[in-house]
Amino acid sequence: MKEYTVAILGATGAVGTRLIEQLEQSTIPVKKVKFLASKRSAGKELTFKGKPVIVEEATPEAFTGVDLVLASAGGGVSKKLLPEAVKRGAVCVDNTSAFRMEPEVPLVVPEVNEKALFSHRGIVSNPNCSTIQMMVALEPIRQKYGLDQIIVSTYQAASGAGQSALEQMLAEAQVYLNNEPMEGKVFPVKGDKKHYPLAFNLLPQIDVFEEDGYSHEEWKMIHETKKIMLDDMDAPELKVTATCVRVPVVIGHGESVYFTTKDQTVTPTDIKELLKDAPGVTLQDDPKNQVYPQPLMAEGKRDTFVGRIRADKENPGSFNMWVVSDNLLKGAAWNTVQIAERLVENDLVRVPEDPYLG
Amino acid sequence: MKEYTVAILGATGAVGTRLIEQLEQSTIPVKKVKFLASKRSAGKELTFKGKPVIVEEATPEAFTGVDLVLASAGGGVSKKLLPEAVKRGAVCVDNTSAFRMEPEVPLVVPEVNEKALFSHRGIVSNPNCSTIQMMVALEPIRQKYGLDQIIVSTYQAASGAGQSALEQMLAEAQVYLNNEPMEGKVFPVKGDKKHYPLAFNLLPQIDVFEEDGYSHEEWKMIHETKKIMLDDMDAPELKVTATCVRVPVVIGHGESVYFTTKDQTVTPTDIKELLKDAPGVTLQDDPKNQVYPQPLMAEGKRDTFVGRIRADKENPGSFNMWVVSDNLLKGAAWNTVQIAERLVENDLVRVPEDPYLG
Repeated sequence: MKEYTVAILGATGAVGTRLIEQLEQSTIPVKKVKFLASKRSAGKELTFKGKPVIVEEATPEAFTGVDLVLASAGGGVSKKLLPEAVKRGAVCVDNTSAFRMEPEVPLVVPEVNEKALFSHRGIVSNPNCSTIQMMVALEPIRQKYGLDQIIVSTYQAASGAGQSALEQMLAEAQVYLNNEPMEGKVFPVKGDKKHYPLAFNLLPQIDVFEEDGYSHEEWKMIHETKKIMLDDMDAPELKVTATCVRVPVVIGHGESVYFTTKDQTVTPTDIKELLKDAPGVTLQDDPKNQVYPQPLMAEGKRDTFVGRIRADKENPGSFNMWVVSDNLLKGAAWNTVQIAERLVENDLVRVPEDPYLG
Repeated sequence: MKEYTVAILGATGAVGTRLIEQLEQSTIPVKKVKFLASKRSAGKELTFKGKPVIVEEATPEAFTGVDLVLASAGGGVSKKLLPEAVKRGAVCVDNTSAFRMEPEVPLVVPEVNEKALFSHRGIVSNPNCSTIQMMVALEPIRQKYGLDQIIVSTYQAASGAGQSALEQMLAEAQVYLNNEPMEGKVFPVKGDKKHYPLAFNLLPQIDVFEEDGYSHEEWKMIHETKKIMLDDMDAPELKVTATCVRVPVVIGHGESVYFTTKDQTVTPTDIKELLKDAPGVTLQDDPKNQVYPQPLMAEGKRDTFVGRIRADKENPGSFNMWVVSDNLLKGAAWNTVQIAERLVENDLVRVPEDPYLG
């Protein structure tokens, strides 16, 4: 059996930690791991399957001899280093937004468009966390009944902004409980001009704003959805709009998804029957017994949880539903490792003769 | 000048406390106040405009000599006691859901349907908190451009479930920060079978569930909207659907509102120009400078804050917007006192010859 040398880029972050865990539990035959991070973190000792691994500085040379890279160290780092890794023969699965919209780079949710992996040219992108879980829930419906429109409002956890942002939110909560005034230091966006407290608050800004008033997170949900489902980031045949809101939750994004199918005779029971056996979905839809998805219950799980499926009775074929998933697992680390598993299973861990070099 | 004896029913609760404050600041000429509550709270001393007032037990006889009742002691109490108050000549403004759907009872947001007050028969209902703020934001748009459809997802604060529920959420948060396991005791609904923690979580259940899978809170938003805007709880000409979610916020409901006007040429600039001067609205819509509504900033204010107005570029005439208001003020105490002010201004504090007695 072929065995692989796997590098994890950004091994010490919130997603990096989970990439290590998910790789430990994966079906990928690992010959050797390399944990790469910034110079600051180099020398730190982590473990893989119980054995110590020293974190190395992420340099172009560090990718020599690597077959597979799982990257989650920020867009700038991916832009700079992944082409270097590809040049050295490594196939990269990138959890940042660096290459998602490049036509040469497949953007993959395995439950939806695994086949896109067959045309990769060295780099595969992992979609945005909030997009992934919506795709898992909607793709079976699109396949069976067609899909005309999606209107989504998100409830996104603090951990989506990284470990230090999460810790800031928890620190704010303690300050509030001590009856002291909270001071925002990180949210909504570390690099933006103003900061607001997130604890016990709601921030309708995730990422920076575009000229048209949409946040870049909303832009991602719209265009990534079209690229994943229809292989065209501007596909007009599926209308998508989004409102993204950061909420004081630790782990687990919630989404209120309104969607319109092409079939006006579909019932909520049809949708539930379909999602009951859908890949990557756990149906939690029994309101009379108060069974519905919740972030606290989704934490640490790979599945996407779906419930509260209801017909919009005034618009046949349209429905409301509530979707929750662990944003660090299916939204990041697990989807990345899952892509890597599919690359291995399909013997696609090889850089083609015309690699994509950014 | 006519002066009024005003009773506050449920004076010791989270809304009751704010009813007292809002009445102190109102334009209503108050001759005397009576603070009424359950037997358990009777004897407690509160103040009105700096002077002590002893809480009395709420009995039918307590309403003798009262001109105006502001009620917020729960639906059961209103059902039992408000007809008694009306019989004794008092006009009642009720903040519970007890009479909202009765055709004989006006359901009023003064910015929208003040004229409905003129046909009251002793009882006026205050709408549900999440409905009120959406009405304030949408009515100017409906008036100018017409409205075909509303799709709303709510982010509702813990205080909407009452003071003890709010305290439970804060206690849960402290338990979590102490690294101990949280235990739900109150949320989502005190009287329902199961309880879940709300701190750092999301609960897609507010009130109990209907047969069709909608929660009663969602049902209220749909049918109250139709009654307030069109004087018919089942009006088909305005389509409304809702998903209501409880979030770990102290005060201030957020709403992601998607709406479709009858005019396909309207622009976001038109909507902003309109809302800038709309009654009860503060426009906070300057994303480039990170200005948008937040619960922490809306707390303690009477206005409804509106921002993030964006066109759904694939559906001309459709828009997304983000609405926040203090659920205990405009969502409850202030709207109730505001109704009372309008009753006073229009000399409507009188029970007609054919009173509504439940």
